[in-house]
Amino acid sequence: MSFSASQVDIGWGTDFQSALSALVAGIACPGADGQLRERIQQRLDSKTKPRGSLGRLETLALRLGLILDTTHPVLEQPQVVVFAGDHGLAARGVSAFPSDVTWQMVQNFLAGGACINVLAKQHGLAMQVVDCGVAHDFPADASDALLHCKVAAGTQDCSQTVAMTEEQCGQAVRNGMNLVKALPGNVLLPGEMGIGNTSAAALVMAKLLNLPVATCAGAGTGLDGAQLRHKVAVLEAAMQRHAKVTEPMAVLAAVGGFEIATMTGAILQAAAERRVIVVDGFIVTAALLVAYALAPAVVAYCVFSHQSDEQAHGRMLQYLNAQPLLQLGLRLGEGSGAALAWPLLQSACAVLNDMASFGQAGVSEQSA
Amino acid sequence: MSFSASQVDIGWGTDFQSALSALVAGIACPGADGQLRERIQQRLDSKTKPRGSLGRLETLALRLGLILDTTHPVLEQPQVVVFAGDHGLAARGVSAFPSDVTWQMVQNFLAGGACINVLAKQHGLAMQVVDCGVAHDFPADASDALLHCKVAAGTQDCSQTVAMTEEQCGQAVRNGMNLVKALPGNVLLPGEMGIGNTSAAALVMAKLLNLPVATCAGAGTGLDGAQLRHKVAVLEAAMQRHAKVTEPMAVLAAVGGFEIATMTGAILQAAAERRVIVVDGFIVTAALLVAYALAPAVVAYCVFSHQSDEQAHGRMLQYLNAQPLLQLGLRLGEGSGAALAWPLLQSACAVLNDMASFGQAGVSEQSA
Repeated sequence: MSFSASQVDIGWGTDFQSALSALVAGIACPGADGQLRERIQQRLDSKTKPRGSLGRLETLALRLGLILDTTHPVLEQPQVVVFAGDHGLAARGVSAFPSDVTWQMVQNFLAGGACINVLAKQHGLAMQVVDCGVAHDFPADASDALLHCKVAAGTQDCSQTVAMTEEQCGQAVRNGMNLVKALPGNVLLPGEMGIGNTSAAALVMAKLLNLPVATCAGAGTGLDGAQLRHKVAVLEAAMQRHAKVTEPMAVLAAVGGFEIATMTGAILQAAAERRVIVVDGFIVTAALLVAYALAPAVVAYCVFSHQSDEQAHGRMLQYLNAQPLLQLGLRLGEGSGAALAWPLLQSACAVLNDMASFGQAGVSEQSA
Repeated sequence: MSFSASQVDIGWGTDFQSALSALVAGIACPGADGQLRERIQQRLDSKTKPRGSLGRLETLALRLGLILDTTHPVLEQPQVVVFAGDHGLAARGVSAFPSDVTWQMVQNFLAGGACINVLAKQHGLAMQVVDCGVAHDFPADASDALLHCKVAAGTQDCSQTVAMTEEQCGQAVRNGMNLVKALPGNVLLPGEMGIGNTSAAALVMAKLLNLPVATCAGAGTGLDGAQLRHKVAVLEAAMQRHAKVTEPMAVLAAVGGFEIATMTGAILQAAAERRVIVVDGFIVTAALLVAYALAPAVVAYCVFSHQSDEQAHGRMLQYLNAQPLLQLGLRLGEGSGAALAWPLLQSACAVLNDMASFGQAGVSEQSA
C-alpha cells in the first residue's frame, strides 16, 4: 500500500484505509509454487494435438487453471458489469459527444439496445449497470439491472480542481468492493460508459506511468486532429494543476472518475476472491493501473481481451506485460471487447477439460 | 478458367471440364453495384455507438451482408467439414508424426475427442468428416458423420511422380462440389487432417505464387531445424520434378493432396451458392489459392478466421489481401481456427440486426 499517513489524515478515513489494506494484502500471485502450473501443462501436452499447437489458447487455459486453482477450470456465472459516470472535464470539449449521452446510454443498456446487451445475450452473460456518478437522476425502481452507487452527479473539472474529494474517491472504491462481494460466479467482465472518460484514463495513465499526457491521449469516440489538440491542451492544464500528486489513490481522486474508481475497487475485490477478470479496453485498463500500483499481483487474475484502437492502450498493455487476445480496432468500451473475447475463455477450458488424450484416443505420439 | 485443351485431352475429361467451367462462371463478386454496401453501412452508422467504433467487426458485418445479399444477414446451420487425406511424401520424413495419425485422428473425430469436436460442440456447429483419400479402410457403416469420398489410399510421392493423376484430381474436386451441394445452411467451415499436408500446401503455394519453396515451408506439426532443412530438400526435389507445371489444376494434381483437391471443389461450390466460407489455416488457404486462381471472386465469399503460426501463412494471406480475425499462434488445423473465430461472425450479425439505432434509443448523435 502506498498510502501516506498525511493522506489518511486529510480525508480517506482510517476505516477505509484498513479495509483497503486488508484487501490488498489478500491478493497473492496464483500458482506461485509451480506445481499446479506443471500439472496443467502436462494435461495440455497429453491432448491429441501437436504440443503447443493451440498457441495462445493454451497459455489462456494455463492462466485460467492457475486463477481458479485447479487443473479442470470451469467458468461459472460470468458477470458483465457496466460502470457509468460523468466527467467535469467533458464541459471543456474533450469529447465528440455531449455528456447527456452517458445517461442516455444507461437507459439504452437497461432497454437492451446497446452493443454490450447484444453480445451479453449472445453469450449468455449476466449483465448489470452501475450508476457510479452519472449526472442524471434515475428512479430508484428504474430497473433491477441498475445498481445505485452514485457518489455525486459527475466529477468536478480536474483542470480546475480535484475530480473527487478523497472521501468521494474512497466511497467509490468501496462501492466497487461491495458490489463484487455480492456477485455470483467466478468471472467479472467490467465495462464502462462515461462521456469524457478517455480523458480521465489518459490522465491516470500519464501520472502512474510518468509519461507526457500527449502520448496518453487519443481520439476517444472520434475526435479529429484539431479537436484532439484541444483535448491535449486541456489535459496538460490538468497535469500542471496536479503536478505534485503521485500516489495511486491520490492520482485516482485528483484526475480519475467515479466509474474508474468504482472499477478499481471491483477489480481489487475480484482478484482477492480469485475471480477471473476479463479486461476490456483503455478505461478499464486505466482502473487496473491503479489497482496494479496498489497490488501488482492483480494482473495475474486478468485476461486481456483486446487491444483497443485508442492509441495509448497498446502502451498500457506493454507496461503490464499483457498480451491481448483480440486486435480488432475496437474503441467502443461498454465491456464489448471483453464480451467478444469471452468464447475464447470457454474454448480454453473446453480444450483442457473435454479433449481426449493420446492414450484415450489411441493416437500415436510425435516421433521426434 | 485456365484449363488448356491439351490437359483436357490427357485425362480431365470433358464432362469435368464443363462442370468446372460452369461452376467458375457462376461465381460473381457480391455487391458489385455498391448499393447494398451503402445500405448496410448506413445501418451500421445508425447504431448507438460512435461511427466505426466496432472496427473489424463492422467490416465483417458488411462482408456477411454482401455475401448473403441482405442488410439483415442471418447465419444458418453452419457446417464444419473436416477433409482428410494421406500423402505419399510423408514416407520421406517430412512430418513429425507418422502417417497412421491421419486415420487415428479420423477415428478421434468420429469419437468426439479432438479439438474441433470440442469447439464444434461449444458453438453448436454441425460437423462431418470426409475420407478424401486416407490410407486406411473405414467400414462403410463406421459413422453417419463420415463421408466416403476416397479417391485412393493416399497420394503418390510427388518428389518421384505426380501426387494424383488428372482423373483422380478431377474426381476429388468433383467430390467436393457434390458434398457441398448436399449441405444445409449457408456457412461452410472447412478443416483438414493429413500427415504431410503442410508439405503439399507449401508446394501448391510455391507454384501458384511463383516463390522458392523454402520460403513456403514451415515447421508443420513441430519439426526442429534439421528436420525442417530435410523437409525443404524433399520439397525442392518435388519442385524440380514439376518445374514445367504452371496451370492451377495441373499444380493441384502434381503436388497437391486429395483433401486439398476436395476442398478446392467444396470452396468453389460454396462460393457459387453464396455460402459464407470461414477459412482456417495454411492448408485450407492452399486449397483456396487454387480456387482463387480459377475464380478470383471466390475470396469475396471468404472470412479469414486466423493467421496460423505456420510461417508462410501470413504471406498467403497477404497475397489474397486478406485480414485474419485472430492471431493466436494456432497451428493445429482441423478447422479449429475457423471454429474459434465463429462467434465473431455471429456477433457481427447480431450488431447489425439487434442493436438499437440512435433514433430508437433516444441517444444524442455525435456533435462534430
